[in-house]
Amino acid sequence: MTPKLVAGLEPPYYTAVFTSLRPEDPEGYAETSDRMEELVEKVPGYLGSESARNPGGIGITVAYFRDLEALDAWRLDSEHMAAKARGREQWYDSYSLHIGRVERSYSFERE
Amino acid sequence: MTPKLVAGLEPPYYTAVFTSLRPEDPEGYAETSDRMEELVEKVPGYLGSESARNPGGIGITVAYFRDLEALDAWRLDSEHMAAKARGREQWYDSYSLHIGRVERSYSFERE
Repeated sequence: MTPKLVAGLEPPYYTAVFTSLRPEDPEGYAETSDRMEELVEKVPGYLGSESARNPGGIGITVAYFRDLEALDAWRLDSEHMAAKARGREQWYDSYSLHIGRVERSYSFERE
Repeated sequence: MTPKLVAGLEPPYYTAVFTSLRPEDPEGYAETSDRMEELVEKVPGYLGSESARNPGGIGITVAYFRDLEALDAWRLDSEHMAAKARGREQWYDSYSLHIGRVERSYSFERE
């Protein structure tokens, strides 16, 4: 699959920036990650996400949401909450989450 | 060098999320990237940044700024503007920039 950027977002919207450090491929992580992707796509107001990880290093996921209601629906999803608890117990060495309200954005695409 | 997350940010602050697709190691890119890192660190109100790139895929950089004045100082820096123009001409297939005002953030670190 050719990677693509999330496009066509019109402000205002929200970015949830999740940055993390963890060992490579910890047990159970990949399945849970796939399941979370499946779940978040059902949240009304979820607009897409992008993820990148340096081999052996930092990982960044940006998820886009239309409004705080969408973000809160995802934050309070019970399966997601259980996954977050497992992440703190078993997978992550450290992580940060930054919730930003986007008023200004810009996209470029080569013709 | 062990990677570290940017820590200790107190809202409000701003995230500049830059996502991109480009060929691996295009000519002149690495030098310019190093120079931009050197320059941005001199901007008053710049709080740090994190970058990750999937091998052969999407790249995400998040830069943190105290306020819009700091962001504008960086946006209008003449060397940075020249680098952006070169990026559009020579390096990037596509990119997006999302400027968000952060009111809520959370960090976790394993003890």
